[in-house]
This record gives sequence, structure tokens and C-alpha cells, in this order.
Amino acid sequence: MSDILHRVGVKSPPRDTYKALSTRDGLAGWWTTDTKGDCDVGSVIKFQFGERGFIDMKVLELAPAKRVLWQVTGGPGEWIGTKVSFDLAPEDDFTVVRFKHQGWKEPSEFMDHCSTKWATFLMSMKSLVETGRGAPYPNDIHVANKGD
Amino acid sequence: MSDILHRVGVKSPPRDTYKALSTRDGLAGWWTTDTKGDCDVGSVIKFQFGERGFIDMKVLELAPAKRVLWQVTGGPGEWIGTKVSFDLAPEDDFTVVRFKHQGWKEPSEFMDHCSTKWATFLMSMKSLVETGRGAPYPNDIHVANKGD
Repeated sequence: MSDILHRVGVKSPPRDTYKALSTRDGLAGWWTTDTKGDCDVGSVIKFQFGERGFIDMKVLELAPAKRVLWQVTGGPGEWIGTKVSFDLAPEDDFTVVRFKHQGWKEPSEFMDHCSTKWATFLMSMKSLVETGRGAPYPNDIHVANKGD
Repeated sequence: MSDILHRVGVKSPPRDTYKALSTRDGLAGWWTTDTKGDCDVGSVIKFQFGERGFIDMKVLELAPAKRVLWQVTGGPGEWIGTKVSFDLAPEDDFTVVRFKHQGWKEPSEFMDHCSTKWATFLMSMKSLVETGRGAPYPNDIHVANKGD
């Protein structure tokens, strides 16, 4: 098993960062503008990235201002069954977010790509919370050679 | 052992991306402006990030337009002895760079931070090669709460 791990510090109270991770408007502001579905525990949030593909996330845990845990139920084969978590903790006047995308069966070039891409989306989330403006799909930062 | 893995696609021939990874001017253009030392195999390149700290990298392998391998000989304790590699391959009119920072003794919050920070520096390298302008220290993108 391999994991993608990241950490960002967001200049905000944890409740504001949590909002970006646990509401449809929040998620649409940094990951993809085409975000559908409810965000309650047990619901499936549908993230569409145009023709590039989609990801369905079942919400497994929500701890306000502390933690969000999803499991992938639809999307790229390598993603199915993997889990994505965001753990929040206040530090000075920041919220530290530890991100984990865990359960990859094996390292791959696609996983390496997703690691870099997650970093840019986490920076988009940080920007959304700090400035009100993120860079969600289709205005996301391209890291690779297929417009992705 | 844990690894940090990334992948970026740089719109350039491999020789141009390789130059950014294997020359002092190249490295100073995307990682830190304060880069000293020779870049030959066996030499130690000294990367200074102001008061934030420094990293010394011994060059272990250089394969023009294909691969760069360093080993950390000075810097943060968790980095000492770890290896950093860049593997290049042409794909369409891009150079795909697979990045690996391997040999971390165990996952840690600092490693998570370095994973995100490496992604932003790789994007800085991509920008340098594609546009002539990177974002090396002290003009680097801040991902965390201590100005780092």
C-alpha cells in the first residue's frame, strides 16, 4: 500500500477551512466547479472534471473543524476503494491541514501525477479560504502534458 | 522507508529540462537563488534558504537529458542520507519528469510538508523552463504557517 501525503497551513480559523472541505459550495470553489450531491455522512459527492473524468466520494466521517474522510466509490480504477482524509488543527493563526490519500495498491506514474496535482488543488483550497478565490477545474493549474 | 513522489510534464525538449536540473544557473532559477558549488558527479551543491536553513546535495549520477541523482549530505536531520532523483523522458512535445525523494526513515508531519513544498518547487522548475521565470527562494510560494 502507498499513500499520497501533504500538509498545508491555511491562514484561517479551522471552521472556515472545514467549510471549504465539507460543503458543496466550498468544494466547488477549489476542486471542480461541477460538484453535485449532498455532503452528509453516507452521501456520495459527485465531482466532474469535464471530459477528463469524474470522481465519486462517499462521505465516511465528518468532525466539524477537525476531520473529513471520504472513500472513492467511482472514478479511475486505481482510485476505487482508496480513502481521502483531511485532518485539521489550529496552529497560531493558521489551520494546519494534513492530507492523506491512502490505500493505493502500488506506486505508479499515475499516482505520482496525482500527488503533484493534489498539491496544486490543496494550494487552490488554501487560496480560496484566504482570499475568496480558488483555482478549481476548469481553471485548475496544469501540471502535466495532457492538459491535466 | 517512505518516499515523496511527483510527476510533472514540462513543455520542452529533455535537454532543456535537464539543464534546469544539472547546472548552477538552472537550479538557482527554480529552487533557491543562493546556490553554490560545482554540479559534477562527486561534487556537493550547496543550497541556502536564508535563515530557513540549507541543504547540501552530493551529485551521485548525471545522465544527460535522462537522469539526475543526488544524496543529501547536509541539512535537516530527517533529510541526511536520503536521495533525490529526477528521471526524464520525452512524451509528445513535453518532457515528463518523475521525481523521487526516497529513504525517509518514517512518515512525519515534516515529510508531508516537504511533499507539498517539492510540488510547488517542481512547478517553479516547469515555469522556469517554459517561460524563463521560476519562483526560487526567496520568492517561493508559501505552503505553510512559518513562511515556508
